[in-house]
Order: sequence, then C-alpha cells, then structure tokens
Amino acid sequence: MLKLLSLMVPLASAAVIHRRDANISAIASEWNSTSNSSSSLSLNRPAVHYSPEEGWMNDPNGLWYDAKEEDWHIYYQYYPDAPHWGLPLTWGHAVSKDLTVWDEQGVAFGPEFETAGAFSGSMVIDYNNTSGFFNSSTDPRQRVVAIWTLDYSGSETQQLSYSHDGGYTFTEYSDNPVLDIDSDAFRDPKVFWYQGEDSESEGNWVMTVAEADRFSVLIYSSPDLKNWTLESNFSREGYLGYNYECPGLVKVPYVKNTTYASAPGSNITSSGPLHPNSTVSFSNSSSIAWNASSVPLNITLSNSTLVDETSQLEEVGYAWVMIVSFNPGSILGGSGTEYFIGDFNGTHFEPLDKQTRFLDLGKDYYALQTFFNTPNEVDVLGIAWASNWQYANQVPTDPWRSSMSLVRNFTITEYNINSNTTALVLNSQPVLDFTSLRKNGTSYTLENLTLNSSSHEVLEFEDPTGVFEFSLEYSVNFTGIHNWVFTDLSLYFQGDKDSDEYLRLGYEANSKQFFLDRGHSNIPFVQENPFFTQRLSVSNPPSSNSSTFDVYGIVDRNIIELYFNNGTVTSTNTFFFSTGNNIGSIIVKSGVDDVYEIESLKVNQFYVD
Amino acid sequence: MLKLLSLMVPLASAAVIHRRDANISAIASEWNSTSNSSSSLSLNRPAVHYSPEEGWMNDPNGLWYDAKEEDWHIYYQYYPDAPHWGLPLTWGHAVSKDLTVWDEQGVAFGPEFETAGAFSGSMVIDYNNTSGFFNSSTDPRQRVVAIWTLDYSGSETQQLSYSHDGGYTFTEYSDNPVLDIDSDAFRDPKVFWYQGEDSESEGNWVMTVAEADRFSVLIYSSPDLKNWTLESNFSREGYLGYNYECPGLVKVPYVKNTTYASAPGSNITSSGPLHPNSTVSFSNSSSIAWNASSVPLNITLSNSTLVDETSQLEEVGYAWVMIVSFNPGSILGGSGTEYFIGDFNGTHFEPLDKQTRFLDLGKDYYALQTFFNTPNEVDVLGIAWASNWQYANQVPTDPWRSSMSLVRNFTITEYNINSNTTALVLNSQPVLDFTSLRKNGTSYTLENLTLNSSSHEVLEFEDPTGVFEFSLEYSVNFTGIHNWVFTDLSLYFQGDKDSDEYLRLGYEANSKQFFLDRGHSNIPFVQENPFFTQRLSVSNPPSSNSSTFDVYGIVDRNIIELYFNNGTVTSTNTFFFSTGNNIGSIIVKSGVDDVYEIESLKVNQFYVD
Repeated sequence: MLKLLSLMVPLASAAVIHRRDANISAIASEWNSTSNSSSSLSLNRPAVHYSPEEGWMNDPNGLWYDAKEEDWHIYYQYYPDAPHWGLPLTWGHAVSKDLTVWDEQGVAFGPEFETAGAFSGSMVIDYNNTSGFFNSSTDPRQRVVAIWTLDYSGSETQQLSYSHDGGYTFTEYSDNPVLDIDSDAFRDPKVFWYQGEDSESEGNWVMTVAEADRFSVLIYSSPDLKNWTLESNFSREGYLGYNYECPGLVKVPYVKNTTYASAPGSNITSSGPLHPNSTVSFSNSSSIAWNASSVPLNITLSNSTLVDETSQLEEVGYAWVMIVSFNPGSILGGSGTEYFIGDFNGTHFEPLDKQTRFLDLGKDYYALQTFFNTPNEVDVLGIAWASNWQYANQVPTDPWRSSMSLVRNFTITEYNINSNTTALVLNSQPVLDFTSLRKNGTSYTLENLTLNSSSHEVLEFEDPTGVFEFSLEYSVNFTGIHNWVFTDLSLYFQGDKDSDEYLRLGYEANSKQFFLDRGHSNIPFVQENPFFTQRLSVSNPPSSNSSTFDVYGIVDRNIIELYFNNGTVTSTNTFFFSTGNNIGSIIVKSGVDDVYEIESLKVNQFYVD
Repeated sequence: MLKLLSLMVPLASAAVIHRRDANISAIASEWNSTSNSSSSLSLNRPAVHYSPEEGWMNDPNGLWYDAKEEDWHIYYQYYPDAPHWGLPLTWGHAVSKDLTVWDEQGVAFGPEFETAGAFSGSMVIDYNNTSGFFNSSTDPRQRVVAIWTLDYSGSETQQLSYSHDGGYTFTEYSDNPVLDIDSDAFRDPKVFWYQGEDSESEGNWVMTVAEADRFSVLIYSSPDLKNWTLESNFSREGYLGYNYECPGLVKVPYVKNTTYASAPGSNITSSGPLHPNSTVSFSNSSSIAWNASSVPLNITLSNSTLVDETSQLEEVGYAWVMIVSFNPGSILGGSGTEYFIGDFNGTHFEPLDKQTRFLDLGKDYYALQTFFNTPNEVDVLGIAWASNWQYANQVPTDPWRSSMSLVRNFTITEYNINSNTTALVLNSQPVLDFTSLRKNGTSYTLENLTLNSSSHEVLEFEDPTGVFEFSLEYSVNFTGIHNWVFTDLSLYFQGDKDSDEYLRLGYEANSKQFFLDRGHSNIPFVQENPFFTQRLSVSNPPSSNSSTFDVYGIVDRNIIELYFNNGTVTSTNTFFFSTGNNIGSIIVKSGVDDVYEIESLKVNQFYVD
C-alpha cells in the first residue's frame, strides 16, 4: 500500500520562541519534578526489544542457544520488586524461538543473601561435562553452567550455578566461589570454549573478567570451569572512562567486499556453518531473513585498497574482538562501549592496531554480550542494554525500566572512514523475524523526489503501531550550498495522538553529519533531566560514492536504532512520548531548494499484537 | 561586598510542559529559521576571550612571545569580509601585554590568489638566522618566521613567510613551497626548536604536520626551515574521527604532589625559568598571578602511589605531549581534541601508554596550539578555538563569529581517575590578569550552607557585566539517597534582563556526575539547531577524599570554561542569550534535603570596559 500526500505548509518567518516556563517559579517546578505520577510516564513499552513486564533490568547475561529445543535464552540483571536497581539483584530469564518475540520466565536464580547481588556473567554449555555437574540424564546440548559475580559485603567473587532442566532452574555450586582475588571490583565473567588452532589441542575454557577500577580485563583459563589460571591481562587500553565493565572476547568473521543482498536483517538460520575464510553471503531463503523484495537494499561495500593490517585478516578470515564497556566518563555522557580488533592465541589478546573504536555512537548501548553456541558457527550475535547509567533509574516508564537492544549479527569489515582511507570496523546487522513482522503490516514508499523548501511530503501510517522499519537513500548536490545556512534534509517522526511530540532525524550538508533530536516531547523527564542528551549526531560517510548516503532504522515505541552506511556506524537511542502516542507519520522536508534528492524512502510498519 | 538573599519560592508540582511550538506549522518555521535577523542574534561578545570585531575566525595560528617588546602575539584563520568561513582565508593578528586584553591588528598576511587559503600554521623565532631571512637590523628576539599551509586548487603545501617588523607585516619566501607531497590534505605545520639531550648537539627545527585523511602526523626535521627531511610518522593512534588536524608536539613539565597555592590562574611571568626536573611551585607575587587572598583554593593533589609509567616522568621531570585535533566524528558530535603522553627523541614520538585521552570534554575546544618562546621556559601555554565545526558558521553572533578559549598553562600531573587508580593527565590552568580584573569588580560568597528542597539561595550581582569567575566546593552525604530520585545540586546562572534565559550547572549524587544545560535560551539557534548539544556532562571525581568536590569556572558573556578537580578535567562550552542579557544572579538549589553542603561558593564579578 502506498500513501503519498503533499501538503502545502504555511512558512512562518523565523521567530523567537518564548519559553514561558523558564522563569523562577518554573525553575522551582523542575526541582520538584522527580515524582512518577502516571501522567508524566510513557507507557510505550517496546514490542520487539525485550523488556520485563515489571521491575528493573540492566545488563544482558548468560546468552545461549539451546540446539535441542531450538530456543534462544537470555538472562539479565533483574530486580523484580520495583522499577529501579536494588538488592537482592537476581538473574531474570526469557526465551525466544525467533529472537523477536520473547517469553518471560521470571527469576532464574539469585544470591543467597538479601543484601547481595547476583551480578553479571555468562553461560556455557558443558557438552563434555568437564565440570562434573552432569550425568547422562542431561542432554549434552543442555548442560548449562552459569558463571556469575557475587557482590556481597564489599567483595566480588566468581561463582558457578548449573541447570539440569535446560536453563530454567539452577543449583549453586557448593564450593563457590571459584575465583576470589580479594577485590571489591572484580566482575562480569564471560566464558567461552577455546579449541586452539592445533588439531591435537584438547581445548579449554577461557574467561575474561573485569578488574573494573584498575581498567584491567583479566584472562583466565580452566579445564573444568572450577579451577582457573590467570594467563594475562589486557589493561588500560583505549578510552578508560571511570571503570571497565562487561568485557568479552569473541572470534568474528572478516567479510571483504561483500554484497549484503539480504542486509540489514541477516539470515541467522542458514543450514550448516559458513566457512570462516570464504566470502560470506547471506541466504535470502530463510524464514527470518530480510525480505529483499519488500525493501531492497542492494548496497555494495567499496573495492578500495585494503590497509596493511587487513592482509592478516584476509588470510585467516576472522579477527578476535575484545569488547569493553566503560562507565561513567563517556564524552557523550555516562556509559559507553568500545572494542579492539586483534588476535588471541589462547592466553593473550593483542590488538592489531592502536585505534580506539566506539561501538554504537548513541547514548543507549551498554554491556554488550554475545551468545554462546550460535547454530551457524560463524554468526556472532549479541545484545546490549539499551540505556545509560546516567539516567537509567529515572527514565519515565512504569512498571518496568529498561529494554534490551535488538540482537545484532557482527562481522569485521573495512569501510571508508573518509574518502582516502579505509579502516576495519565491527559491522552490525539487526536480526529479527522480518518476514513475519512485515506480513500483516503496511508499507509506504517515496521515490525519486527532489526536495525544495516550499513544500513537504507526508507518509501517514494506517493504524499506527509505533513499530516500523525505514530505509532512506538520498543524494546530495553540494554545489552552491552556503556554509552559513543550515542545509538540512529532515524527517519528522510525528506522534499520531499528539503531534507536539516528534523525533527529528536528518542530515546537514555543510557538516556532512546526521542528527537525531529526541527532545520534542511533553514528558517532564525529557524536558528537564540534564543527562538526557536530546541532540545526537554521527558523521555519515557515503556508502559507495561521494554524493549518495543511506540510513536504515528500526523504531519500536520508545527506542530507535539507526544503521548508517549498511551497518558500519550505528546509533541506538531511547525516546519518550506520552502514553499511547505512537509515531503516526513521517514528514519529509528540506529548508533549502534542490540540494536533496530522495532516491527512496521505504517504510514497513510492523503488525504487532 | 557580600550579598546573600534567601527567597522562598513557590514549589509547583511536576507539570507537563506543553510546547505549543511543536506542531506542523511550527515545524515549518524551523525549516525557515536560518536567517540572521538581528532580533535572533546574540551580541554578547566575550570580553576576556579573544574575538575579532568583525568577520570569521577559526584556528589559532602562529602563537609567539616577543621578549624584546614583552608582547604576546596571536594569529588566526580569518575571513574579514563576512561572519562565515570564506576565501581568500587570511591570518588575522592580535597583540596583548597580559593575555587578557587583546589589541586587534587586522590581516597579517594572506594567500596570493583570491580562491586560495592561508591555512593554519605556526611561527618561530629564528634567533640564529638559520633561514637567512634576516640581518643584524632585526633584533634576534623578533626574527619571526611563519610556517603555514597554502590551500589552492586542490593542493596543500607548506609555505614560509617572514617579518622584519616584529610580526606586523610579512614577506612570502620566494622559493615557496618548502614542502609539497602532492596531497590535497597536508596541513597545519607546527614547528619548534629541538636542542637535543646531548650538550654538543647543534639542534634543529622539528615540524609536525597532518596528512589529515590518512590520520598521520608527519614529523620532519630541518636545519634552516627551508629544507625538510621526513623522520617518522605518528599514525592511526587513539580516536580517529574523520580527519586529523592541527597536530602539535610539546615538552610539558611533570608536576607531582604539588600544592597549587596559586591555581587556577597560574603565574606566567615569574622571573627566571623553573628547572624542569624540580617540583614546580607557582609564585604568588606576580602581577598577573591568581590572587590567593580573594578566592583561596588550597587544593592538594593526592599522595596516592604512582603507577609504573610515571616513574620515568619523575626521573626526567617532563613528558612530551602530542596534541591531535579530529573533525568530525566525535561521539559528542563534530570536532574534538585528544592528546598522547610520551617521549620524543628528536625524530620519533612514542606514547608511554595505550590510553586515549580527550582534552576538554566540552563541545567547543578545538585546534589547540601552544606558544613558541614563553618567557618562563617550562610554561606550556596554549589557546584553542572555542567552537565546533558542526555549527561554527551558524552560531548567532554578529558581526563576528567565534572566539578563542582562554590561554591555559598545561602541566602533566597524575590524578585519581577513580578511587583505586591514578592516571596521568594534561592539567589545565586558566591564565588571565586576575588581579586587574578583580580590582574594580564585586565579590559574593556563600559558606557552610546545608541545602534543602524547600528554600534556595540567590547571589545577585550588582551591575551585571556578564564576566565573572566562581569557585564552588561542596560535600555530598551519600547516605540514604535513592537511585530513582534525581538528586541534584543545581546552580542556575540567570539572565539579568530576561530570566527565561539561564545556564543550569550542577551535580547529581547517584551518577556522581556534573552537568551543564545550555538549552534555556530564547535564541532560535539554541532552540532549533540539532547540532547545538544543549546538555553536557562530565564525571567529576573528588579532589582529595570521597565526599568533597570542587569546580572552578569562568563565565564570559557567551562562553563558560569549567575546571574540575583543580584542572584535571575541563569542559568549555559556548552559550547564547539574547543581546544584552548578562548573567545577573546565581540561584543555588537542591531538589533533596540534607544531601549537599556548600562548603564555599565564591564569586568575583570582573569589571570590564
């Protein structure tokens, strides 16, 4: 279904906007605006981003795939009793068949003491029963062991718990802790199985864990998950912030010059593993692959010359990536995530270069963790917590607080960091059951439209659900633009019930940057909380030549994920509109004449229950 | 003079603030709000931050000190014909006796062609006439040579110009360029004299220059400024952004466990050089030193154990610092500055560690350059451009655009990056003639005041000049605070003529971070430009123990420079109020009871002509 309206809008001259709320008495009202009366809350709980029905959630934990039941399991830092962080902190649990719809399971396990926290950690499948926790009554594919941090009485230690019922209930190991270094900042173990390059290698478990306020990722090895040997540390690299948290080390396929025919929304259930050093091509045939026929995005990565460091990756077909979250201290404010591309020999991680790379340039992307045991062996799937510690406890939602990011599929690619240089980057592709989501939805398209300042275009959604994807490709005529004129292409994502509330998303041609303004809301939190950065931006390099740009986005009630340049740059940000005010239209506008051509703007509004 | 008012303010309950401007017709007005009608401009030109009277300014260039005349010279990227960047781009010039009051000199030199730019560069004093440009008629202390980039017709090359009249007029070298590598992105040479560690060394000139879009700082040497040899490159380190620009390499004194009796505002005219490997102690006796008796800030750096890497610095008493600006691509948006602490052997720079450090966490601090030939040899004095390329051409000022930062004096210190770890940092101290500025000003003080939510304090300025310094020390009682309550100490810097306009500055106890909100203004640019980040924040670690914090700030009409923890963390940001609306009062308030004690808030309003 195509709906295309063209309305004339009266163009008012530039006016000083008086904010009558900003005098002393209004300032006084700000001082008192921390209450959570329901009128000041946004109840627009996301549909395809996981959130618990009630209570507080932070970091994703223990992500694993059950190959027997074909279920995806996620756990998370969970305080079920109130929508704010509190003790005892437990592990919540949810299960999905398609990484899209999640079935909440409640508390999986918690700490023994009321004033303790079962802090973040990971899960592994102990197929070969190295731990001795299992016997033949547990299918090898379901021999789940959780490795987590007990925070109690000024001490942080690493603990084990195991499950005999496929991850629904857990027993705590009687000889816990398995790691205690007499520290109050030693947390977030992520464990994986390292088989070794040598075919005769027996393999062993490897743990990365943060000595948080020393900015150290400690790397341990173990034969049995119980006895751990410190092998090395990766310390004080990149941007430090105030603390390192939630480290992770993962082998990521290197993809060169690949046409992502199916991107974004890659196939994560193709049969059989892709060979790591082959060129990855995603199948379109899977039930949850991107449906290329509805929103085709045929974007080819550049053929530019590889920089020296990539020759190593070309040969082996993968790199190791060290993920580190830091909090607070981001120059964007609060918490952030960085990563390092390098090599791992079983005991030591060595970065390939000295570049500091941030993963996701938005404000709400923290504590990324990857799944253990993806069915397609080379797929690296991960979830981050879509919030920021600066304001996470105070975001205006009720009775839950915080959601996860979408699942993303990560690859290492090279991209044009500018017109003369390529750089390696961790590429992100969102993973959802797009076929099903689009099936009963509605679609809208704009094509081949040159924008001018005297008119605008409106895509108006039928029965707004607040959940949709969009794909924008545009070209820019840089000739004759003036640096003193704000030269924008703007998309206004406007509330259906209250048009005062909108997201403004756009590009400015002088600065060659993309912007997002999430400040246009009637919710007091948005108006007043000084940590809720309203205006965000990213540099958006062209995807293939110098004048064509693209952005893909998924909007889900109160969160927007943006994927620039086919996923080489991302920005994930929450936003808060009044209860029930779903985005109902997209207004496409430019303040200048004949600078922008919309090559295509395609929108699929998802049908959700 | 002490003024202390305590007013009761009616506390309204939290209310939804309706923004009536946000419907479609108001959106339309945004599209057209790029005009510069005088009613939408802020004419609040700063008083002690340099700006040209008319026209466009960007990077500081060619900073040097004339020891004969005892004058400080600055040059800058200057387009005098309009308040926006344009060609031909020239070098503007200004002179000061005290780094506080600047005497504008107009254009020093420009390119030969109308469509060319005399892009950024530096100046040196060629005491020994290595260049051959001088004879005995020019005092050795005034043998000024400018090294700059000619940008013309898709090429960037390094050029020389020299002055026989102490830096007022220049002659271009007839055999220009002196460096041409067939590049369109080869710019911003910064040259210094390297004497070498060996007493028999003859010394030579060293240039750092950016191969911008290769993320390379090229390091050249020369005996005569004309013939340059490529020695090494410093490439792809730290955060890349989109381009490297304005590199600089400078030897910075290492200061350990020093009480800055005179900080901030350090002495830059003490007689005789301080020995580089002695402990630096700043004199209080100088005419332009910080006057400790009026606003004493006796802050002692911690005695915590040095990390390993500092032992090298302890021994030699200094480190080399590589300054790199990058644009765009900062996660805060647009342009930013980073630096690397390391060693330089005359040909190669090697960082001491792999940490990425940003210099100034605000939005408006770019293209930092240091002075050649400071009278006190160990002083490292520098100036940055106080704007951001995202919006610099569109900020609402007229008929000038952009100002410089204050001069800062830099040292390497260690600081408590968190409660368990120290890190090396480039410490900043603002340099101004504080004695003179305070002399005819007015002073205001608050002391030993526990804040509660039912009242507030007001410091009201007599005859607001818009230019003042403030020093805040506060302690926080973390016991019993709630993570779901925004637990703030807020300072509202309110306009005298229009109280709708204010800066909100404060600290939040749950996140342990400091915030600045510059969004409360009636100026359309502030309301509408999506790149003008309104809300900024920094992590503010305690200065000495776990519950006492400090911030020092200088406000100058439309710019605020914040120095946290005695200068270890800074944030520089412009702001824009309506014409003539100077800050006239500071309202001190907390939304919670008995969490904050103001140990002291001291304010000196400066008298300016």
